[in-house]
Amino acid sequence: MSIITLTTDYGLKDYFVGALKGKILTTNPNLTIVDISHEIDPFNIVEASYILSAAYGSFPKGTVHLIGVDIELNKENQHIAMQWNDHYFIASDNGILSMLCQKIVPQKIVAINIHDRLHHGASDLDVFVQVGCHLASGGLLNVIGKEIQSIKEVTEMQVTLNDQGSQLSGSVMYIDHFGNVVSNITKTQFTEAAKGRAFEIILKTKSIKTIVPNYSAIAVSDKYPIKYYEGEKLALFNEAGYLEIAIYRSNPSKVGSAHSLLGLNYRDTITIKFS
Amino acid sequence: MSIITLTTDYGLKDYFVGALKGKILTTNPNLTIVDISHEIDPFNIVEASYILSAAYGSFPKGTVHLIGVDIELNKENQHIAMQWNDHYFIASDNGILSMLCQKIVPQKIVAINIHDRLHHGASDLDVFVQVGCHLASGGLLNVIGKEIQSIKEVTEMQVTLNDQGSQLSGSVMYIDHFGNVVSNITKTQFTEAAKGRAFEIILKTKSIKTIVPNYSAIAVSDKYPIKYYEGEKLALFNEAGYLEIAIYRSNPSKVGSAHSLLGLNYRDTITIKFS
Amino acid sequence: MSIITLTTDYGLKDYFVGALKGKILTTNPNLTIVDISHEIDPFNIVEASYILSAAYGSFPKGTVHLIGVDIELNKENQHIAMQWNDHYFIASDNGILSMLCQKIVPQKIVAINIHDRLHHGASDLDVFVQVGCHLASGGLLNVIGKEIQSIKEVTEMQVTLNDQGSQLSGSVMYIDHFGNVVSNITKTQFTEAAKGRAFEIILKTKSIKTIVPNYSAIAVSDKYPIKYYEGEKLALFNEAGYLEIAIYRSNPSKVGSAHSLLGLNYRDTITIKFS
Repeated sequence: MSIITLTTDYGLKDYFVGALKGKILTTNPNLTIVDISHEIDPFNIVEASYILSAAYGSFPKGTVHLIGVDIELNKENQHIAMQWNDHYFIASDNGILSMLCQKIVPQKIVAINIHDRLHHGASDLDVFVQVGCHLASGGLLNVIGKEIQSIKEVTEMQVTLNDQGSQLSGSVMYIDHFGNVVSNITKTQFTEAAKGRAFEIILKTKSIKTIVPNYSAIAVSDKYPIKYYEGEKLALFNEAGYLEIAIYRSNPSKVGSAHSLLGLNYRDTITIKFS
Repeated sequence: MSIITLTTDYGLKDYFVGALKGKILTTNPNLTIVDISHEIDPFNIVEASYILSAAYGSFPKGTVHLIGVDIELNKENQHIAMQWNDHYFIASDNGILSMLCQKIVPQKIVAINIHDRLHHGASDLDVFVQVGCHLASGGLLNVIGKEIQSIKEVTEMQVTLNDQGSQLSGSVMYIDHFGNVVSNITKTQFTEAAKGRAFEIILKTKSIKTIVPNYSAIAVSDKYPIKYYEGEKLALFNEAGYLEIAIYRSNPSKVGSAHSLLGLNYRDTITIKFS
Repeated sequence: MSIITLTTDYGLKDYFVGALKGKILTTNPNLTIVDISHEIDPFNIVEASYILSAAYGSFPKGTVHLIGVDIELNKENQHIAMQWNDHYFIASDNGILSMLCQKIVPQKIVAINIHDRLHHGASDLDVFVQVGCHLASGGLLNVIGKEIQSIKEVTEMQVTLNDQGSQLSGSVMYIDHFGNVVSNITKTQFTEAAKGRAFEIILKTKSIKTIVPNYSAIAVSDKYPIKYYEGEKLALFNEAGYLEIAIYRSNPSKVGSAHSLLGLNYRDTITIKFS
């Protein structure tokens, strides 16, 4: 069985996702299609990049990940396919894969060049489907593209350590379904900068001085029931390895969330001070 | 073919559901995964319980139902797996399965105890995935847990009949996509209490004196077209067997619904008076 | 492999879609189920009709399309199954298939008559599931219904050309996930009416005088980066062949869309003047 995953900003109401699946199954009826997300904020490369980097690792090696965000071929963005950590990724070269490449060097990248081989009127999505089915069937990258050495970098939202090594600064890159706030600061970056020192995470008017191993760890005392701790703010490294700020057992639509209660928005700065 | 269903409060935007499916397919590529709902109101046990009890019966016996709502292991909630009516359920012991158990006695319940057998850093969800794939492959409950005799009860939202037997009271436990209002009063409870008597369903300022067999039955007269009846309130027992209050052919975002037009909200009381 | 697609107004939160899939897999575990959309505006026949006509063509011939919008059997709407362009469609005869039939004559239509053959308490959806699984398994239409010659027509939202041939008028039939505005004017209708003449698409207070082949084609000059063109309005024929008005790279929730910025709503008139 081969798997092809889909990450798009197409939404679930329109015909786009259904048609995409129809095209894939028409090309290869034996593929297993898995939705990662179709609710990426339109054209938001940072979101797509985060979601994908958090999800890909749960799939078997050899899985093909098709990224349908901002894929219209234009004078700035070519279509690329990349083998990376034994997974395959198909995307527009708009920076969306650079978050992955900052962690591990790609095995091979090609600029897709099969556009002229498809039927007249073939869309950009048709190209992605052909490439995806080719790779999922064990096809080689060389057959569908010309090798390139680098991809476009996204330079916004970098994590920086100041010269004295006393302050690590990142940004809010994602607000999740629970209103939890995900920064771009990884556990590795934090650990290397912290060197075991005490720290304070600065969140606008509030701060947090500990990082808990999981949400329920905020309920430290056996004297009180879990319910007593609902609504407390906490920091942890989420499963994807990023520093996350949460409100314990928050329901965003009812009691609020880290996003609403702490006033933390997309692109806001998160600073960690070491002492 | 074995089926594993998913009922969670993870939402569809985040990477959670995609990653969950990736973990399942990595463990057993031959399982068929079916989404029941990922839009359960965060941490809402009543909603999850209702959705699942309404959906499970449409699946073949032997299906495994994984419930990802409030599953973080903590000092109050252990992880359980239950065989019930020839289906399997995996959940946190937070009361979420008690709605099922009030109807039919479980065949077997175990407290899951495989946590130490998984790889270092395994999450609560990893435990659920391992148990789910084990059961879907025909594995025994005893292998993954220690038998227990009872589970946590949810005591809120009980249906009560007054001492004189003249009044049955329940609560709104769910508002559906059409704005229809679903109470926790079952057809069986109603029939046993009514004993064939006339009745009046009290809904804040309005009341309903008949229960129709299906929505279109409100269009009683052949003199008028269906359209004439649009907007009429009605009561019926829905496919899941619960008393539901609806507005005929309502579009919640345009003309309103039972929820908005009758002012009926989650947890509101629904009373039936017999005469 | 046989495919059955689902297009409904059930939403994704309730148990309806999960139960529907359970029923299908119980009847035939070997079918591949593909969601087209479950977010059709409740009871909106025009939306369902558009989504389906835009999606069906991406599926292999022989695919069965089940349409769960307004399917309760009543005195006005019977259940029908239709073979059309080598695809199968199951729907209520409420006009939902008439958009397809305006383009290509159906191969065969039957009024479904298996209701009495199902178990007591079978729902309308159970009927659709039985018919769908029958057809997906290669069963004949005659076995599940009685042939009829015509279906109900939807007459609202027709495209009209004035007597002088100088003005083509259509309506907004859909607002997509990106806030793009889709009219019911097809490329064929436009081309036949235009006869190569210059034209002006009238949109309330604005107008557009060119139709571009794809979104990025609005970025005409090599002097400016793509970003320079963000926010420009444009007209194109979308993949489904309908005239669409868009704002280049718009994010509806942030900067607005054709829908919000041009004030174009469902049912609004779109007029093309030829000169």
